[in-house]
Amino acid sequence: MGLGKKGMPLKGLEEAKQADVVYAEFYTSATPGLSPEELGELLGRRVEVVNRKTLEEAPGEILRRAKDGRVVLLVPGDPMVATTHVDLRLRAEREGIRTRLIHAGSILSAVAGLSGLQSYKFGPLATVPFPDNPSPRPYEVLAENKARGLHTLLLLDFRAEENRAMLANQALELMLGLERKYSRGVFSGRTLAVVIARAGAEDVLVKASRAGELLRTDFGPPPHSLVVPGKLHFMEAEALKILAGAPEGAVNELLG
Amino acid sequence: MGLGKKGMPLKGLEEAKQADVVYAEFYTSATPGLSPEELGELLGRRVEVVNRKTLEEAPGEILRRAKDGRVVLLVPGDPMVATTHVDLRLRAEREGIRTRLIHAGSILSAVAGLSGLQSYKFGPLATVPFPDNPSPRPYEVLAENKARGLHTLLLLDFRAEENRAMLANQALELMLGLERKYSRGVFSGRTLAVVIARAGAEDVLVKASRAGELLRTDFGPPPHSLVVPGKLHFMEAEALKILAGAPEGAVNELLG
Repeated sequence: MGLGKKGMPLKGLEEAKQADVVYAEFYTSATPGLSPEELGELLGRRVEVVNRKTLEEAPGEILRRAKDGRVVLLVPGDPMVATTHVDLRLRAEREGIRTRLIHAGSILSAVAGLSGLQSYKFGPLATVPFPDNPSPRPYEVLAENKARGLHTLLLLDFRAEENRAMLANQALELMLGLERKYSRGVFSGRTLAVVIARAGAEDVLVKASRAGELLRTDFGPPPHSLVVPGKLHFMEAEALKILAGAPEGAVNELLG
Repeated sequence: MGLGKKGMPLKGLEEAKQADVVYAEFYTSATPGLSPEELGELLGRRVEVVNRKTLEEAPGEILRRAKDGRVVLLVPGDPMVATTHVDLRLRAEREGIRTRLIHAGSILSAVAGLSGLQSYKFGPLATVPFPDNPSPRPYEVLAENKARGLHTLLLLDFRAEENRAMLANQALELMLGLERKYSRGVFSGRTLAVVIARAGAEDVLVKASRAGELLRTDFGPPPHSLVVPGKLHFMEAEALKILAGAPEGAVNELLG
């Protein structure tokens, strides 16, 4: 389904219209996209919404229908970024069901475009989990990326079952907490960060500032993502100022 | 325009139909996509194809028309991955012209889905340039990523002006040449690699094997990309075997 209400590629629409059955899941990612109702209207046909439990534990019905017919599974963003999708695809292929992917917009490449940061300078990404499931992982990834001068995309935790999507403010708090705990000097209130809210939506918001400043800003409804820039090229610095309102001083500190 | 002939998101089609002028460029990436003629048919309107020279050196006409009207610039893959696009966008914003992005499928996230490798385990990507413009960069990036157990996406050089897109076979040769030159022990004929040919097209091909074996394989027409896996999770190993025909032995060596 890509990013946004009309992020689906033309090829996706075509396949969904021609399929025998169309499933859709809305839990692997909190994209600012279609509701299940809007999706049904867009396709002009019935869509069966599947939840995590069905897709991960009881995909038997989906596979059975894929054996005799054409089944489409619509997912938020780009397919196969979630492990669940890969698992389902492998099950299908093992049972002799041929699978194909239709690629769509993903937050993974959208953040580069929105911020003006260059995609080949991003290190590995990490997810910031809710505090009831804490992990040093996003902090470690950030520390390693920073040591190489690389940018870091931090995705924020999302629990569809509880209808909870982490806001950038909470993610910033959690990263500051990890800094207090591990003290590797990679994330403080003075660190330049970029908040990307609602990538793909009409009201997308991209704001770069020091973490302490961003903490006190209201970015509106989720989904939010966070980017912590590494070293900046001149054009990246310009882009952060012009496209994301970054303060000159914070940007200049990172020019490399 | 995303990936493939119908990779364009519905939103992109809508905006292009409503715009006062539609430009398109086909030189920043060799996607197996639309021809300019097919694009015109798809949109049902005139499209002005712009080349590198116009976009980079003489975008005055584009900006002038964007001042009084709605201008759409269609690009291969996801917008703003190329520096040229960022530069044009910054020029527009500096002149008070509001810009917006419509996100689409990109090789950057598609490779993870196609290979079954997990996107959060990819280090920074690099481009393998043609030998008349040699660079140790892809080799260095690969060495650093491997040391961290990360996967590496290698994009292959493309020169629209000369109608030349590098094939995976040549890229493999060049990487082996860099290994002979720098001897850091990160790429040999026994290294497991994944060739992805024509991502987004109906005849997409994904093949994992040792570099020496891939070297002698015909992958058909470009575009090709190369992925060199780092450490593999169990499910990634399964995916490489099932989706890309990877030999058991080569995959097992990387399980970590």
